[in-house]
Amino acid sequence: MSMTEHSSREALALSRLYHDFDEEHLVPLWTQISDLMQPAPAPQAVPHVWRWSALYPLAARAGRLVPVGRGGERRAISLANPGLGGRPFATPTLWAAVQYLGPREAAPEHRHSQNAFRFVVEGEGVWTVVNGDPVAMRRGDLLLTPGWHFHSHHNNADAAMAWIDGLDIPLAQYADAGFFEHGTGRVTGSATPDLSRSERLWAYPGLRPLSGLQDTASSPLAAYRWEHTDRALREQLLLEDEGRPVTVSQGHAAIRYVNPTTGGDVLPTMRAEFHRLRAGAATPVTREVGSSVWQVFDGRARFVLGEAAQAVEKGDLVSVPSWTQWSLQAETDTDLFRFGDAPVMERLHFARTLSGPAGQ
Amino acid sequence: MSMTEHSSREALALSRLYHDFDEEHLVPLWTQISDLMQPAPAPQAVPHVWRWSALYPLAARAGRLVPVGRGGERRAISLANPGLGGRPFATPTLWAAVQYLGPREAAPEHRHSQNAFRFVVEGEGVWTVVNGDPVAMRRGDLLLTPGWHFHSHHNNADAAMAWIDGLDIPLAQYADAGFFEHGTGRVTGSATPDLSRSERLWAYPGLRPLSGLQDTASSPLAAYRWEHTDRALREQLLLEDEGRPVTVSQGHAAIRYVNPTTGGDVLPTMRAEFHRLRAGAATPVTREVGSSVWQVFDGRARFVLGEAAQAVEKGDLVSVPSWTQWSLQAETDTDLFRFGDAPVMERLHFARTLSGPAGQ
Amino acid sequence: MSMTEHSSREALALSRLYHDFDEEHLVPLWTQISDLMQPAPAPQAVPHVWRWSALYPLAARAGRLVPVGRGGERRAISLANPGLGGRPFATPTLWAAVQYLGPREAAPEHRHSQNAFRFVVEGEGVWTVVNGDPVAMRRGDLLLTPGWHFHSHHNNADAAMAWIDGLDIPLAQYADAGFFEHGTGRVTGSATPDLSRSERLWAYPGLRPLSGLQDTASSPLAAYRWEHTDRALREQLLLEDEGRPVTVSQGHAAIRYVNPTTGGDVLPTMRAEFHRLRAGAATPVTREVGSSVWQVFDGRARFVLGEAAQAVEKGDLVSVPSWTQWSLQAETDTDLFRFGDAPVMERLHFARTLSGPAGQ
Amino acid sequence: MSMTEHSSREALALSRLYHDFDEEHLVPLWTQISDLMQPAPAPQAVPHVWRWSALYPLAARAGRLVPVGRGGERRAISLANPGLGGRPFATPTLWAAVQYLGPREAAPEHRHSQNAFRFVVEGEGVWTVVNGDPVAMRRGDLLLTPGWHFHSHHNNADAAMAWIDGLDIPLAQYADAGFFEHGTGRVTGSATPDLSRSERLWAYPGLRPLSGLQDTASSPLAAYRWEHTDRALREQLLLEDEGRPVTVSQGHAAIRYVNPTTGGDVLPTMRAEFHRLRAGAATPVTREVGSSVWQVFDGRARFVLGEAAQAVEKGDLVSVPSWTQWSLQAETDTDLFRFGDAPVMERLHFARTLSGPAGQ
Repeated sequence: MSMTEHSSREALALSRLYHDFDEEHLVPLWTQISDLMQPAPAPQAVPHVWRWSALYPLAARAGRLVPVGRGGERRAISLANPGLGGRPFATPTLWAAVQYLGPREAAPEHRHSQNAFRFVVEGEGVWTVVNGDPVAMRRGDLLLTPGWHFHSHHNNADAAMAWIDGLDIPLAQYADAGFFEHGTGRVTGSATPDLSRSERLWAYPGLRPLSGLQDTASSPLAAYRWEHTDRALREQLLLEDEGRPVTVSQGHAAIRYVNPTTGGDVLPTMRAEFHRLRAGAATPVTREVGSSVWQVFDGRARFVLGEAAQAVEKGDLVSVPSWTQWSLQAETDTDLFRFGDAPVMERLHFARTLSGPAGQ
Repeated sequence: MSMTEHSSREALALSRLYHDFDEEHLVPLWTQISDLMQPAPAPQAVPHVWRWSALYPLAARAGRLVPVGRGGERRAISLANPGLGGRPFATPTLWAAVQYLGPREAAPEHRHSQNAFRFVVEGEGVWTVVNGDPVAMRRGDLLLTPGWHFHSHHNNADAAMAWIDGLDIPLAQYADAGFFEHGTGRVTGSATPDLSRSERLWAYPGLRPLSGLQDTASSPLAAYRWEHTDRALREQLLLEDEGRPVTVSQGHAAIRYVNPTTGGDVLPTMRAEFHRLRAGAATPVTREVGSSVWQVFDGRARFVLGEAAQAVEKGDLVSVPSWTQWSLQAETDTDLFRFGDAPVMERLHFARTLSGPAGQ
Repeated sequence: MSMTEHSSREALALSRLYHDFDEEHLVPLWTQISDLMQPAPAPQAVPHVWRWSALYPLAARAGRLVPVGRGGERRAISLANPGLGGRPFATPTLWAAVQYLGPREAAPEHRHSQNAFRFVVEGEGVWTVVNGDPVAMRRGDLLLTPGWHFHSHHNNADAAMAWIDGLDIPLAQYADAGFFEHGTGRVTGSATPDLSRSERLWAYPGLRPLSGLQDTASSPLAAYRWEHTDRALREQLLLEDEGRPVTVSQGHAAIRYVNPTTGGDVLPTMRAEFHRLRAGAATPVTREVGSSVWQVFDGRARFVLGEAAQAVEKGDLVSVPSWTQWSLQAETDTDLFRFGDAPVMERLHFARTLSGPAGQ
Repeated sequence: MSMTEHSSREALALSRLYHDFDEEHLVPLWTQISDLMQPAPAPQAVPHVWRWSALYPLAARAGRLVPVGRGGERRAISLANPGLGGRPFATPTLWAAVQYLGPREAAPEHRHSQNAFRFVVEGEGVWTVVNGDPVAMRRGDLLLTPGWHFHSHHNNADAAMAWIDGLDIPLAQYADAGFFEHGTGRVTGSATPDLSRSERLWAYPGLRPLSGLQDTASSPLAAYRWEHTDRALREQLLLEDEGRPVTVSQGHAAIRYVNPTTGGDVLPTMRAEFHRLRAGAATPVTREVGSSVWQVFDGRARFVLGEAAQAVEKGDLVSVPSWTQWSLQAETDTDLFRFGDAPVMERLHFARTLSGPAGQ
């Protein structure tokens, strides 16, 4: 048998082997390993900026054209990361959307195992009713609806309102962990109190009700109010001025929203933070395993993502995929809300961070 | 050998054996077990009430007669449980004292491994400086100086001020775990700000500075202000009126002071709580392993301790030894501060509680 | 304007809105919610049985046709769940493969953030070298190579050997958390000791080296030997015979492999268990959030998956997707190895289980 | 008024004040602080060596003279630290005793909240029955009877047997946390199996029964056998010879006995360890907050305690009070058992250790 004959017989045998693998629902690792196990994370998701100036008018148009109610459930418009093939996912783990509710509209009650929060970049007048507890939504507030809590929204004002929804929908779908259930049709909390019952019970620094001594996976506090966030950040910067090392880096104050029963993240799958940079301040250049989404709350900054930089301003939303190099440089005093899947990476021990000196 | 001879020889042998045990620093268990291992805790400490009406004038007399300074360190007058042989211990684990500081007086800086807090039943004008951070003390506040934090006190007012100190001195002494060190002579924080730096950094509901993500054994929050405690309790009772099951029992609201980094007790060895009972309300009849000390902050109540009951009112201090049956019945609306060694009992898995229906 | 005109204008406006959404990388929730948020998990992965009688000969053919070495790295043939579009994933989170190493062959050293284990259904003669520590592989053993541990394999025998690899490759890929690095070309541990250094240090019941007091995310024990597993299961059934309630259900003994530093799962993302059913015994009918893979180690059983049942025997591998109803009925005494993503579901608080009476 | 008059009036006022303090059960801190808060722990307990050569014959004499049975409960002879005023306490927190059981004798069943273990320096033939499970006692074994577990002992041999009991009796007494209850008169487990049921269920490296997934405060494993301890230590020294850094210090191997459900200490209040020093090896010079008791299991060593050194040999027991400087120098190969209150100090955050270079 010649060399040629030999190698053509080998090629044939290999081809038959691969065919037989296929028949038996088997795949050889050796042809796939370079895709499956790359030197460092190579996300399909890409860094992307969604402009509030485009988003909000589209939401308003939807407000005129699309009713809200049982079935569609929410008038929410999802960010679809351009790298993720049209799926409505901001990153592989995170769902982010603008939800729009017209004057006197309501979104029906349901619950799901997916964890959710709302963050309000502007406006007020809507109440989210969480397990029967009406929670006012106002500019700068973070509102929680942890997994399997019933919730609905009703707009009590004569103006429309829009806000950001953040959920772990992609993660729950990936993990085949999603459950969903409709609530009752009737409104379970039409009242419009300034403070929810949850806050009246839990929103005190370092105080825990004796009736609430069991730790919970998600925070029992339904609302984190802007007045506290704003003041915490302001004080950090004042303390920095007084020479105290309490900021993350020079001119960069930040807080994490936490579950008061544990001091840990507000939801088991999502971290939420608020950052304030003074004009001219910059964050370190950072890469992290895990993805996040930022929203500019106020001000104007340069967001450096990999090699590119973009100017961002109030309302703009930015996706930062895993292991993407990022940094922020504030042009004016800038406030930013951030959420991400860091608790997932930490709990699974996949977390890893590289952080260099502040960028320019 | 007769029976008599035999038994007298035995007695002699036994007597020699016990003598030889003694020589070798040995003790037979069988003669001691009924003391060492009783059916249930049989504390030497007794329930006792110290009257504010007696305590405070004595503290004031000490203010006139005894200087405060290096050596004596503090003008503190300790509660000595009548069952504990004159030692200055409120219970086997807890030290409680009235500290009195005259106008413009100061108590020098030191630190110790013993954990400490202050609770203010009345007055204001003193600042406790904790690791250089001046912390104002005002009626109803709980102030912490965790183990090994430097601290001093200075009275900035023209009136004297008195408050309660709580420490784990007896426990640290028992465990041979006490370390003590003088600080500098110079005042490390003569400023008199309304809010300490610690509060400016930490006193927000559910917000954690990004510079403070390491959990700490003791709370990083130096002051728990009365306005928050009072409001938390008021809201619990209002929520009870609205039909929400958020109180401990009917007419009995309560909060635990907690470490915001963990949701657990403020200090590793001591628990602190505040209770509010409506006039006519009563607690369940309770026995707990572990001891505690109560101080009436306001109002008038009947404190049932074992078989006896005592009327208590503002400022009165009450020791409740381990496994002592206790209950409270409020004659007027009554506020009470409580601290105890429950974290010790829980961490060592000695905790046990029996709780019956509300007493009368 | 007629009704028709009106509705055709509306349709046009809606169509334009959807077009504009698309331009801006936005997707409306209301058209997607029924897919994104289903009443209960609706996995794309399907229950499937891979037959050892087909798998093993294919692996042997690969052994003759495909070399093993740097680049392809491993002669591993992955289970590709028929529901997952040809991707080499046994379930959405789990990778499972048969690895085959010919006489005197070696697979080169590398490391990756993905966690891995091996389970040996038959054979011996290969050593996995983990961070320089040679670990013998023998029938019934579970061997660990936690994330970022260097590892290679070398066959010291004159016969080929095959075993099962389990990794969290799909999860790490999904989460964009994968890192990979080649090791040195030289063999780092050609020795062939009976016991690895890891076992000499850690494989004692309830003993922990004083040099190993730091808890670790993954188990420091590299090998869980069959002799221990077998004996633990045998004793459980004997104890059951003696009237002790130590089995999971009648005739069903089981152990979980655990990290001796914590008592928790061996790897942060994967759980491993071994189950023994007496002939005639059956497990409860169960649904769980999270997926798993079973391998029959010995015996013959009926595996009921949803509505269908299949006979399984030695070496057969079975995928059980999330929320799939499953039960097992042993025809002979049956031993089964199981691994799954339960730690992921538990750590993210997505875990949920329904368990009925034993099936028939 | 003259100076003399003035100061004598002051002295009188002060004397009256102190008298009035006393009347009201109050004690001034300023006269006590130097005792209460010393620069470093100043234990009343002293380092002391109890000689086995004295202890054992005394236990045997007690065996002839004192019956064992209900009331006295145990023929146990307690170490009474010479610094602790004749109380039967080896240290402030630890009780240690030699228990002696004659041929065919039995000690009746009881239970108590105090945690207990036995360690066997020599002999065999006794079974401790723990919650109905007979646990054989043999040379080198550590046996547990955690708090509130019923237990009795019966000697099945024709020879007497003696062993060491360790309990947290002083701690439970101090904390007023002791509960005690008699068991039934009848023997609850007269069987004499080689292995207890507890071991048959739990004594496997890294395997956990699926019926035992709840973590427990105390170890569910009733016996830690000498064969495992011995082999673990032997392997550590062999690994050291092979160049692996697995020993505590040169020539010093050590294991901690742990609870397999958590990897933590076997009992919530006591730590148990076993140390092996090669002839000529020495430990670092160490001071620790917390006390411990050592027993020489085999060999001969020099025990340096503070300034003094003592030769110790098989069976000798040594108390090491808190913050006492200690080190060990092995004259021959030496094995030592150690137990202490370290879990208490760690859980209460009083732990502190200073460790210098190896002594000579």
